[in-house]
Amino acid sequence: MHNITSQVANVVTKSRIKAGTVHIFNVGSTACVGTIEYEEGLEADLPALFDRLIPPSREYGHEEAWHDGNGHSHLQATLMGPSLTVPVTDGKLPLGTWQQIFHLECDIKPHRREIIVTVQGE
Amino acid sequence: MHNITSQVANVVTKSRIKAGTVHIFNVGSTACVGTIEYEEGLEADLPALFDRLIPPSREYGHEEAWHDGNGHSHLQATLMGPSLTVPVTDGKLPLGTWQQIFHLECDIKPHRREIIVTVQGE
Amino acid sequence: MHNITSQVANVVTKSRIKAGTVHIFNVGSTACVGTIEYEEGLEADLPALFDRLIPPSREYGHEEAWHDGNGHSHLQATLMGPSLTVPVTDGKLPLGTWQQIFHLECDIKPHRREIIVTVQGE
Repeated sequence: MHNITSQVANVVTKSRIKAGTVHIFNVGSTACVGTIEYEEGLEADLPALFDRLIPPSREYGHEEAWHDGNGHSHLQATLMGPSLTVPVTDGKLPLGTWQQIFHLECDIKPHRREIIVTVQGE
Repeated sequence: MHNITSQVANVVTKSRIKAGTVHIFNVGSTACVGTIEYEEGLEADLPALFDRLIPPSREYGHEEAWHDGNGHSHLQATLMGPSLTVPVTDGKLPLGTWQQIFHLECDIKPHRREIIVTVQGE
Repeated sequence: MHNITSQVANVVTKSRIKAGTVHIFNVGSTACVGTIEYEEGLEADLPALFDRLIPPSREYGHEEAWHDGNGHSHLQATLMGPSLTVPVTDGKLPLGTWQQIFHLECDIKPHRREIIVTVQGE
């Protein structure tokens, strides 16, 4: 899990857009994005929650077809979603003090990820 | 569950927008949209997951008021959400190779659904 | 939980935008937004669902660090998400008859919340 807030804020700054939205999108089906208070406790709690609700298992239909051990990764990423939109006001991200943008890898092995950030407005 | 990726891609092509976003929205409160690796295993796993986390039951408050048997459908659709935004780059959807856009009916009887697709950019 | 549909519709009307999208964003990490059939049954069912899937507990990592009793609130709000986008057509929200926009407080004490509404289009 990574805190990508400052990277997103940098894209917004470089776009020179002052009012609008910024859209963050994870390319691929086994990772997700969202907002969270980014601190060590929740950094452990969120993946643990996903593994409790949607546990690693060989009993998914995806497993029976593909045998790659990441059926739960797909379902976790789909439930959380690959897409987040945040407003841009005064050229900044008006996030709460304890609200950051995270990217969470749900797959069972590391991936190099592409995240597309689109700023729209004026 | 349906793979609506090609329909969304067609709307993007016709819009002639090359860089921006496309927004997909399900009208109604008992169906949802998202992204997934669209293959037979996960096509069975995702509805099964929702029925495990939020099982069909007569014990929802919605049931006590409306007796229409779809309290779980509402909750499943709300949790997953009716809305998805995907980037548009070079006039295309930069989805991962194994990442498609799905529409999932959560209700207990078939519905004719309206999905609104909005392309924004330049 | 609040039905904020009419406030969002008012912002859309004042924007004079006829075709595009409206984005609704909750500032802060312990509340969320989405769509639901807004009626008394589901108004009780949705928070109950979140408390069943992600129960109040002192056993979250967030608790061990912060001892503020709202680890589950953070996880519930993150899972549901702070962000919703709805189309604007003919200057209106084309929601289903039984589909409204809600704001749900997941924290354990009341908060004054800031919700940022951004209308984009023409």
